[in-house]
Amino acid sequence: MLVVLPEGEAHHVSRVLRLRTGDSVRVFDGRGREWAARLVPSARRSATTVELVAEVAPIPEPSVRVTLAAGILKGDHMDAIIRDATMMGAAEIVPLVTEHVTVPKKAWQGSAALERWQRVAIASAKQCGRAVVPEIAAPAELAAVLTTHAGQSIAMFVEPAVGADATPVAGTPLAPGGTLLVLIGPEGGWSSAEVTQGRTAGAVLVHLGPRTIRADAMATAALAALAAVLNR
Amino acid sequence: MLVVLPEGEAHHVSRVLRLRTGDSVRVFDGRGREWAARLVPSARRSATTVELVAEVAPIPEPSVRVTLAAGILKGDHMDAIIRDATMMGAAEIVPLVTEHVTVPKKAWQGSAALERWQRVAIASAKQCGRAVVPEIAAPAELAAVLTTHAGQSIAMFVEPAVGADATPVAGTPLAPGGTLLVLIGPEGGWSSAEVTQGRTAGAVLVHLGPRTIRADAMATAALAALAAVLNR
Repeated sequence: MLVVLPEGEAHHVSRVLRLRTGDSVRVFDGRGREWAARLVPSARRSATTVELVAEVAPIPEPSVRVTLAAGILKGDHMDAIIRDATMMGAAEIVPLVTEHVTVPKKAWQGSAALERWQRVAIASAKQCGRAVVPEIAAPAELAAVLTTHAGQSIAMFVEPAVGADATPVAGTPLAPGGTLLVLIGPEGGWSSAEVTQGRTAGAVLVHLGPRTIRADAMATAALAALAAVLNR
Repeated sequence: MLVVLPEGEAHHVSRVLRLRTGDSVRVFDGRGREWAARLVPSARRSATTVELVAEVAPIPEPSVRVTLAAGILKGDHMDAIIRDATMMGAAEIVPLVTEHVTVPKKAWQGSAALERWQRVAIASAKQCGRAVVPEIAAPAELAAVLTTHAGQSIAMFVEPAVGADATPVAGTPLAPGGTLLVLIGPEGGWSSAEVTQGRTAGAVLVHLGPRTIRADAMATAALAALAAVLNR
């Protein structure tokens, strides 16, 4: 089967990697299928075409399906969250609009931000060898996300100051065969109303110890900690 | 007791935060003691002096004492390792000279690099609320570090391709009351000779799942995962 690569990947293959007809590549569909392939001549000069040689087994996805809902951070930092959550195996990422989000609406509303985040997720999947690109949802309010995930296990990561009744990550609840919604806040953390809202929806408050973790490092820290205790 | 702040901190207090005589600050000695303090007039205009008002209890250090030895990465990325390891509670950080380190010797040898890394660690301790600044050792070879830590628990993080006999983080061994040496490689990972060297020294090979984790994210990912399974 012949496949014409999307423009961005064609550029990467021919201009960055400088591959030629006959060279081998791996291609993936972003939904979990992966093939060994080789470059073949294209009808159009600007197109890059590959022939799928053999389907290969992709690396396995995590046993727990995680949705990461993350308070929207400033440009580069939100890109880091998307990139890192993809690398750490999140199945879905929801940019979260919360009380302490300071990024102006025009920076995250509409298709431009969403398309950029999708490009970031694709690039990260390529880099970490994952055949699945997590779905990036449109930015949503906390209440809407809690409603969508009603009845599922929910871990709400809180800062040390809020942590009086929070549990270490090892105490994260997980319904058998279940999915897990992971909530991380923006730079300013959660408002107390949001913490109450989370608790009311059944979220367990989880902490990463007494030190304050930078917001842009939270996707890596929270998902690595959860993977260590959940994916045995 | 009156304390004259070091130059960098004095600049931060008077020029960045624009604090004045009478304003409250927290000061720490980097070795685990912390005080509530207030700014007092200085004899010299350029100096910033504080009066220690009361010693306060610092946030607790992790129950497991971790030394992180990390393959030296390019400038910004090594700074990220130092910054993140401080935030994740490492007691000591050793820049590691390994076969696949590509950073030229002149970039990490001598006092300039060490002094920059120490500044990065101090800044990170302030940001995460930690009263202890981890010791940054001079760059060392893997063999020397393994010798120094002989008889201690050693976790050597390996890439997925090397992971045939590696254990998930939950399998990290820890002698009672012990300290833990954590080894993470540079961008190119470990050579097979280094993996053998680690095994011979008693290191347990540990992995973070089947995806490739970026080298500059490894301090956060590895230490968050370890903290989740060790500091209960």
